[in-house]
Formats: sequence, C-alpha cells, structure tokens
Amino acid sequence: MPDVIPEDSVGLVQPQTIHFDEPLQLSCGRTLNQYDLVVETYGSLNADASNAILICHALSGNHHIAGYHNMEDAKPGWWDSAVGPGKVIDTNHFFVIGLNNLGGCHGSTGPNQISPETGQPYGPDFPIVTVDDWVESQARLADHFGIQQFAAIIGGSLGGMQALQWSINYPERLRHCMVIAAAPRLSAQNIAFNEVARQAITQDTQFHNGHYYAQDTVPRVGLMLARMLGHITYLSDDGMRNKFGREMRSGKLNFDFTPQFEVESYLRYQGERFSTAFDANTYLLMTKALDYFDPASRYNHDLVAALKKAQAKFMVISFTSDWRFAPERSREIVDALVAADKPVSYAEIDAHQGHDAFLLPIPRYLDVFAAYMERVKADTPIHNTLAEEG
Amino acid sequence: MPDVIPEDSVGLVQPQTIHFDEPLQLSCGRTLNQYDLVVETYGSLNADASNAILICHALSGNHHIAGYHNMEDAKPGWWDSAVGPGKVIDTNHFFVIGLNNLGGCHGSTGPNQISPETGQPYGPDFPIVTVDDWVESQARLADHFGIQQFAAIIGGSLGGMQALQWSINYPERLRHCMVIAAAPRLSAQNIAFNEVARQAITQDTQFHNGHYYAQDTVPRVGLMLARMLGHITYLSDDGMRNKFGREMRSGKLNFDFTPQFEVESYLRYQGERFSTAFDANTYLLMTKALDYFDPASRYNHDLVAALKKAQAKFMVISFTSDWRFAPERSREIVDALVAADKPVSYAEIDAHQGHDAFLLPIPRYLDVFAAYMERVKADTPIHNTLAEEG
Repeated sequence: MPDVIPEDSVGLVQPQTIHFDEPLQLSCGRTLNQYDLVVETYGSLNADASNAILICHALSGNHHIAGYHNMEDAKPGWWDSAVGPGKVIDTNHFFVIGLNNLGGCHGSTGPNQISPETGQPYGPDFPIVTVDDWVESQARLADHFGIQQFAAIIGGSLGGMQALQWSINYPERLRHCMVIAAAPRLSAQNIAFNEVARQAITQDTQFHNGHYYAQDTVPRVGLMLARMLGHITYLSDDGMRNKFGREMRSGKLNFDFTPQFEVESYLRYQGERFSTAFDANTYLLMTKALDYFDPASRYNHDLVAALKKAQAKFMVISFTSDWRFAPERSREIVDALVAADKPVSYAEIDAHQGHDAFLLPIPRYLDVFAAYMERVKADTPIHNTLAEEG
Repeated sequence: MPDVIPEDSVGLVQPQTIHFDEPLQLSCGRTLNQYDLVVETYGSLNADASNAILICHALSGNHHIAGYHNMEDAKPGWWDSAVGPGKVIDTNHFFVIGLNNLGGCHGSTGPNQISPETGQPYGPDFPIVTVDDWVESQARLADHFGIQQFAAIIGGSLGGMQALQWSINYPERLRHCMVIAAAPRLSAQNIAFNEVARQAITQDTQFHNGHYYAQDTVPRVGLMLARMLGHITYLSDDGMRNKFGREMRSGKLNFDFTPQFEVESYLRYQGERFSTAFDANTYLLMTKALDYFDPASRYNHDLVAALKKAQAKFMVISFTSDWRFAPERSREIVDALVAADKPVSYAEIDAHQGHDAFLLPIPRYLDVFAAYMERVKADTPIHNTLAEEG
C-alpha cells in the first residue's frame, strides 16, 4: 500500500462503466444486443478531442492501467511505470483511456457477467470474440468520448495486435500506432502453448463445461497450470537463470515432491494466486483471440496488402530475449510496413527479462519510448498550441 | 507392421528380465533389497567382453531400442535408425545393451510393479532415484554380463546425462562416452517446465496421491497435459512452423473450442496416446532425476573438477534448434572437458527438428556419428583382431 501517493502517479482513480445499446455484430456471426465496457481515464481530454491515447491490454490485463483505487491498494495499475504526469505516456499532455475488453472478467460484458437475456452469467455461451471485434467496440468507445482520431493507440503483446488492427480497420482514426512485443500472427508453437492451457482448464473436473459459476466453484487447478505455463513463456531462459538459478529452498535435495527449487515455489505461488483472481472462461476467450489474430488472412495472407491502407505512423518495439514473440516476429511487421511504404520506427531493446520486459521500467526502453512520444506530442494539435503559447 | 523385416534390422527380439539380489543403496538414503531390470541385447558379446555398448534411455524411453517384438509390431524400437547390422551402432561388431531403468514402467522394478515386501504396487512409495543410482544399477548389469569395460556408453538427453555420470563414477569402465543433446544440469526454465508437468499429474483428481492402481484408474488428463507440454519442448519453433504452420483442419475458423489448427489435434492425439501408455508415477520420477542431475554439485559446483578423473574419450553432439538442451549447454560440457584436459570431439548439427533431432535419421548426424563409431571400433580389441585376421 502506498503510504503517500507518488508525485508522478495519476493518483486515486475510479473506473466507470459505459453502457452501449447499439447491437454489435461479431466476427463469429453472432450479435451482442447490448454490452458494458469498464473504463479508466487519466488526464484531460482537450476541447477538440485531439489528445487521446488508447492503451489496449494483453491477455490478463484490464482497464486499471495506472494509479490506485484506494490507499489500501498493494500495487498500482499494470502499466503505472509508463503512464502518469511526466512519465513516458504523459498525462499532463494526453487523455489516456484504458478499458477492459469484451469477454474480459473485470466488469466489462463477459462470461462472468449476468446476461440481461437469461439473468444468468453468460459463462461458456459468451461468444468467441476477436481482435476485430475489440477494435469495433473500442471505436464505439471513442465515439462515446467524441474522439474522432486518437493521437496514438498503444499496446504490448495482444494489446499490440489490437493497435495494429486499428491501423487497418480505421486508418483515419489514429495518428500513431505503437506495437510492442507483438507478432503479426501466432506461430504453431504459440498456438500449441495456448492449447495446453485450454486443455488444462477445460479438462479440470471443476470446469463443468464452463458452468462453474452455478456450482460455486472454479477450475482452480486448470487455471493454475495455464498460468504457470504462461509465466514460463513470459520469462526468458536467461532471465530465469538470473532470478532463480538452481537455488534450493532448503539448501539440499528433499527426495520428495514438495517444492525443491526456488523456481518451483515461485511458479506455484503465481499460479495459485492467479487461479482465484482470474476467470477461466475469459482466459479461454483471450487465448482464442490470440490464435485467431491474423490481419493478413483477409488479404490473401499478404501482410503488405493488409497494411497498404494504413495512415498512421508506426513505432514497433521488441526485446532481445522475448521468445514468446521474438524480435523476428516484430521485424515481420516492420518489413511489411516498409514494403507498404509506411513510416515506421523500430527498436530492438537489449533486455534479459523475456516477454515481460514490455511491462518493465527498463531505462533504454523508456528512453526510446519517451523519444517517440515527443513525436506523438509534436503531432498533437493541443501540444503545438501550448508550445506556441509558451 | 513390417511385411518383411528389413535386412539392416536386428530382427525379432525378446526382452529378458534379470533379477538382482544384492541390496542397492540409493542416493536418497533408502535401500532396494532386490530388483529386476528388463533388458534387450543385440549382437554378440565377444570372448573377452570388450565389444559391449550400453545405450541409456531418456525420459520416456525403455529397453526396446531396436528391432521388433513380433510381426504385428507397428514400429520398431525407439532408436532403430541407429542400431542394427551395418548401422551406425553396428550390431555386427558390437554387443548392444538396452535396459529399462529403475523406476521405469516397462518391466523393471518401479512404481507399477509389485513390491515383494507388500504384495502391492510400489506406487508413490517407490523411492526417488537419481542418475547416480541408475549408473550403479547399470554397473551391476555390466557385472552380470561379465563386462569389465564398455567400448562405449551412449545416450541422448537424460540418457546422455547417464553416460556423462558413468565417466565420473566408473572412469575405468568405459573407453568412449557419447553425450548427445544433453546438459550438465537443468536450467531454471527446464525445472519449471518439469514442475508444471508434475503439478498437472499430481493435481489430477484421478491421481489419488499416486495410489491410482488400486482405484483402477490413471491420471489421464494430467499425463496428457504433461506430454503435450513436453512435446512442445521437444520440437523447435521452426520445426513446428514447417510441420504445421497455421494449417486449419476445416479450412476456416470454427469459433468454438474444438481443435482448430492442425497443431492442436496433433498434440491432443500425442498426449492422449501417451496418457494410457505410460505410468504417471514413473513420469514424476524421471522428471525428478532430470532436476536433480548435477554431477558438479559434489565437486564444489566445479564441472572441471568433476570430470578430472574421467578416463574415457568423449563425443558431444548438439542440434542447432534444440532449445530444451541448447548447443550452449553442450558446449558447457565440452569446455569443462577441454579444461580438464580430456579428449573430446564436438559436433553441432544443423537441424530444424529441435530436441527430437537426436532420435531422427538426419544424414549429417548419422555421418558424424558413424565417423566417431569408427574410432570406437578401432579402440575395440575384437575389431582389431578381426582386422588383423582379415
């Protein structure tokens, strides 16, 4: 808990729930007649609504990006290191929006929310949503705020995929697109890891075909396994070596199956904590959205063709030790953007933290990020006005 | 099933069970008063027992290395591509021994076998065995056959670790040591993957604390998940891309949780097949033997010091795309051997198949292997005698 809210924090923040009545046609063919999105915003929207930044979340993220909900919070939002007054995403200049995506489990319409049609949790009947669907729902969220064009749309991992899809689906609605630690589509290995996680959840005896809410239980073991496995793929081999090595909890071999090495107890702890904090049906949906993401698929599998209509300027960032979405995968995006004749900057950050690096305050990363944000500011009318006034 | 047994096959083979009465003191402090080892042999032991090769198996391997058990066998033994008359491990020259290690589930004393003391399966009461314990039991197996010194001890992965440990524990009992796709100890990431597999098994509701035999069930889901996960780590990202890409079974997205991509159905099939063919308690033991392997630990964590007393000549082989035990890990062994002033050859084979490559008939691999085996032959008295006679 913060004894004192730090000066560069957005401070105490409150989520808001925004209701949408216009039916949303989904990629799967089904329609959501109405839905809620839970949102947090930081900073102030300027008069011409030109200083808005949308931050899209990754697999287990949500709307709570920065600041604290109350003085008892143990931790701030998930990207507090990057978002705040004077930080790289500077809330003194920008109006920042974070949301919980459709299908999420933190208040937006999703499996753990009550369906107005049945009066029961959606559960496994919640449709499989795609990155396209999220972009569509986020565009309506922009309409709600009167934002015609974002100064930037930013995301890491699955969040970066949403940013990239925005640049294709709504080319005129963002000036900058920042795609961090992402890939233009999942590899067979990525899909394989997701499938192990899904099998762990769906074959858990407490899953009850997704109707576990009614049984007052959760597929705790399945979700724990999914998270343990996911966690390994978020860290690098080197990073784990640095963090845990072969350190043993008791200093010697136990010759039993209790946690022996530090890395085992760390993973169990992380898995167990997640297993009761996150919704299993949402986890399934998020992994499917990842598997299905493939913006080139509608363009004869030609990513260059898919990106031809983009109008944003792009910043792509990758991390050397990220093996979930390795730098090669980011370079596929960069190469396609170059071939499509789009303005793109690319930085490969030397970091041993693996995929997790995108969330961490790595100095070189924040420096590069901040430098690019200066360009975003320069392209933001309000900023220019202020600069001229100053 | 083989219509005709190929000419370069060892043909129809039969395992034999060898009983040992002398108590075996284990690393954990417990003692096995008696035990069986199931063994297959190929070729003929010469008069002075100088032409014997021991092949040690990996995590899910066993004694059935080459040939067929009957004409209905769908597949030959697990390393049939390398072992046979005229093959790289040439049974015209060598007497080859394969065994199922202690704790295994293919007939050697292990969790699924009846304890003579209780009349019940050992189950979870079977002690955690180590690579040291296996080497000791294999040394007694050598005694049984009257083999004072092996021409070579060969193994891949966990099998390579046994070969390496032999060179330290019984330096005078092997002339050549071939360590393929192995590592001098597991990394934190390796241990982490093993721990996810163990959690999947032990938290399966059908595990019954390891006493599932009495319940006439098996922890099918847990073992399936362990195998699916293991399988991903045996293949490379590139190899999976080549093999599966993003090919879809139906040609289009289903928007449900049935297997969508080829890689999903492949993994499920492999996992399900394994889940009823292998013993869960054995899987747990094998992963612990992997985690605990660390020959340097008794030498103040100095691998060079550990290898000082070795007398064998070494051949170390790694594969470029192996990320379970990457070439860097093999080079740690090579570097330590060089520093310890031991004769060592090293080959890094360009292969996209990942860790699995060590089992596959990759031409460059077999060529390098065969070239080294000529040196083993040259160091084998019987071969020299035959050559002089001819």
